[in-house]
Amino acid sequence: MMETASEHSDAIETVRKLIQGIDIAMLTSVTEQGLVSRPMKTQEVEFDGDLWFLTMKDTEKYEELLENPNVNVAYVGKSYVSIRGTAELVDNREKIKEFWNNAYEKLLETTSDDPNLILIKVKAETAEYWEMGNRMKFVKQLYNKLSGHKSKEADTNQIVDLQS
Amino acid sequence: MMETASEHSDAIETVRKLIQGIDIAMLTSVTEQGLVSRPMKTQEVEFDGDLWFLTMKDTEKYEELLENPNVNVAYVGKSYVSIRGTAELVDNREKIKEFWNNAYEKLLETTSDDPNLILIKVKAETAEYWEMGNRMKFVKQLYNKLSGHKSKEADTNQIVDLQS
Repeated sequence: MMETASEHSDAIETVRKLIQGIDIAMLTSVTEQGLVSRPMKTQEVEFDGDLWFLTMKDTEKYEELLENPNVNVAYVGKSYVSIRGTAELVDNREKIKEFWNNAYEKLLETTSDDPNLILIKVKAETAEYWEMGNRMKFVKQLYNKLSGHKSKEADTNQIVDLQS
Repeated sequence: MMETASEHSDAIETVRKLIQGIDIAMLTSVTEQGLVSRPMKTQEVEFDGDLWFLTMKDTEKYEELLENPNVNVAYVGKSYVSIRGTAELVDNREKIKEFWNNAYEKLLETTSDDPNLILIKVKAETAEYWEMGNRMKFVKQLYNKLSGHKSKEADTNQIVDLQS
């Protein structure tokens, strides 16, 4: 299934609108015991296909993500959004300073120059969303053809690429 | 770490109060491609250590859960709750009728005698929750000693058994 650049940017724009203003997302990762999730403060930057979170190197999720980078990021707002992706741990001091604000100062009880701070970059591979009314309506699956698993998803209607 | 029957019922009661009235949970499961989540209507029954959801046999999640029963159930309300557990697919027609109500009729567009209906029973193994204020406060991890993975969790403070 080929997508045009315009369909690609429509997909990004759709996800951007869906998650806009939702301050906390649930990040689910894989541990030895099973699947765990935790609330993560979202960035006040526009979604471009990547999601960014701030954490500390001395946390369990840091170790978990190094071992298994598969994650799901769920947003609960007017819609329910599920983003499947892979997490990368990025030690970029400039980007940490760029994202930093007073909320993090309180949340993480540290300052932006703390060497323990690390970024989690989630590369979005598919996004699905549902809107709630009388019915729990599955609206659309947004698919990234870069993931290399096309055969199954290609059967699903309403798939558009997140990246082109 | 040994827990008393009273600590056990306190843990169940804590989770019950946290998730009470939250109509929709995000259920995350493992697929070949990675982690996916979807909103699921919660049951109007009191939490006793198991969470119940209704789905259809002809859905992707049915196949996914048969292949890999590890799940996370996240509740977003006044608190953020993460429940790690394992899913079992239960074909119990009486229980389906017991849970059935008009909301399902609209949501799933079927009737309670549909043979395609199936129950997802999630056996809760650990529950963690966070409350939001100035800080994102990690409140407590509620631990089920039945999971057989005690060594790691035993290091964590404030662990109580979900089941005794």
